[in-house]
Amino acid sequence: MSLKLTILGCHSATPRISAHPTAQLLEIKNHLFLIDCGEGTQVQLRKYKAKFSKIKRIFISHLHGDHVFGLIGLVSTFRLLNHEMELHIYGPKGIKELITTQLRLSNSYTSYPIIFHELESNKSELIFEDKKVEVFTIPLDHRIYTNGFLFREKIGERKLNMKAISKFSEIEICDYQNLKNGRDFKLNNGKILPNKELTLPPPRPLSYAFCSDTTFKPDIVPTIKNVDLLYHEATFLKDREDLAITTKHSTAEQAAKIAKLADVSELIIGHYSGRYNNLNDFQSEAQQIFPKTTLAIEGKIIEVN
Amino acid sequence: MSLKLTILGCHSATPRISAHPTAQLLEIKNHLFLIDCGEGTQVQLRKYKAKFSKIKRIFISHLHGDHVFGLIGLVSTFRLLNHEMELHIYGPKGIKELITTQLRLSNSYTSYPIIFHELESNKSELIFEDKKVEVFTIPLDHRIYTNGFLFREKIGERKLNMKAISKFSEIEICDYQNLKNGRDFKLNNGKILPNKELTLPPPRPLSYAFCSDTTFKPDIVPTIKNVDLLYHEATFLKDREDLAITTKHSTAEQAAKIAKLADVSELIIGHYSGRYNNLNDFQSEAQQIFPKTTLAIEGKIIEVN
Repeated sequence: MSLKLTILGCHSATPRISAHPTAQLLEIKNHLFLIDCGEGTQVQLRKYKAKFSKIKRIFISHLHGDHVFGLIGLVSTFRLLNHEMELHIYGPKGIKELITTQLRLSNSYTSYPIIFHELESNKSELIFEDKKVEVFTIPLDHRIYTNGFLFREKIGERKLNMKAISKFSEIEICDYQNLKNGRDFKLNNGKILPNKELTLPPPRPLSYAFCSDTTFKPDIVPTIKNVDLLYHEATFLKDREDLAITTKHSTAEQAAKIAKLADVSELIIGHYSGRYNNLNDFQSEAQQIFPKTTLAIEGKIIEVN
Repeated sequence: MSLKLTILGCHSATPRISAHPTAQLLEIKNHLFLIDCGEGTQVQLRKYKAKFSKIKRIFISHLHGDHVFGLIGLVSTFRLLNHEMELHIYGPKGIKELITTQLRLSNSYTSYPIIFHELESNKSELIFEDKKVEVFTIPLDHRIYTNGFLFREKIGERKLNMKAISKFSEIEICDYQNLKNGRDFKLNNGKILPNKELTLPPPRPLSYAFCSDTTFKPDIVPTIKNVDLLYHEATFLKDREDLAITTKHSTAEQAAKIAKLADVSELIIGHYSGRYNNLNDFQSEAQQIFPKTTLAIEGKIIEVN
């Protein structure tokens, strides 16, 4: 099991030559999820050699430009690349109008269906699941309706303990799936072999929580408790906590406090305000509260195993 | 007098790492005009150190994404830069809805007024003028309503011929403006000095024609006749004239034919399809018809004096 996060952009507000707005690519259980899509994201996807054809689900935290202005360009490029698969877009109510208005006015169309999943709840909700993964919203508190997203592997099948199984010639290959599913095995003599003696526990499911623009909001802690990796915005240092409050953003210290309260394994921070030149100050401020903090930097890849 | 054109992007369709979509910056008579605004244009403006604060008028040829998807980002960035001046946007009917819908859905506003000049005529029309410059549309023929733009200096004042003037002590400084305006001078003895004996002709006014996406359309020739610099799209080489016809674009040869028919001083071509690796083929194809052809290349600056 593994989870791989690529940072495509990690800065706030206006894009600059070396400061791309928020976008991340998450590989989890054979899915390739795009999270937020600021202007220029499609070029960043090319730069980091993402497989466009594997992106079938896009999650948009909120409709501020630095998180969504790149979406219409990507949607248009998918058409030029002759995509045919459904594209699922999860985002705040209004995202459908945002995209369809632009398609209509540019007299464009897509060669594939777009399925919009418009969000408007203020409670965490399951918005996607298949056999192996589930995605929940993390309602945040920003100047506009905003969600973070919790990506979680489901608990997998138990692993066969071949050393134990080989002692019983009665157990055949066709029995393996029942064992993986946790069922006990009944021998011909009537004796029951408990499942635990024939299998090993499944790998621990991994989880990633993406907490986009938000004021300090400790009530998200139960939703993101114990995740393996937490991204939390840190737009300001604590010297400008006043600005964080008025603009409904967080400081590096506040991001670290959330990580500590939620007892996560690792914290990654980003969405730095353009007023700061030295990003290391963000890391050191956060590490005073939560040592396992790293900086989101364009092109950084974080793998969790 | 001079005219300075900076190529910010010159490729068609989807933006790639080293292939930015159409955007140009024109300096003419103390104006800084932005022409088209594909995704990423604001970053290109920074890269080439454009003075954002001097951009007060933006001209959009048509609403296909590779010419306009960067506009909402630029409009938003102007707010972050605390612009207060009016911003004039000239473009096809629908451009106001395109921008205002995005501002509304992102719960954003601008700190300055945007004046939209929506175009829908199929005849060339004067859309801006002041004392020194005038801008006309050049109706084109593409898959969607599209205009090129003709930027033309007005004829300036006549220049004082100081050597001739100095012979007449009766002519005082307060008379100079009348002379510049072309008026004759009456001496005290009643004799008339013709203006031409006291002044020199004004500098020749310069002109630039931007012909964005269009099929081969010779009927634009009278509008762009004798311009100093013509940009004409050349999406394909003549080997794919069939594609040029179906997509309503032009070949390099066709761009050159327009330049020759209009007897322009210099031609610049761009909007290359991504299918071609060697841009020099565009130049050589065009130069067979019109030798003074150059390629639009990102960062190229063309000055006309």
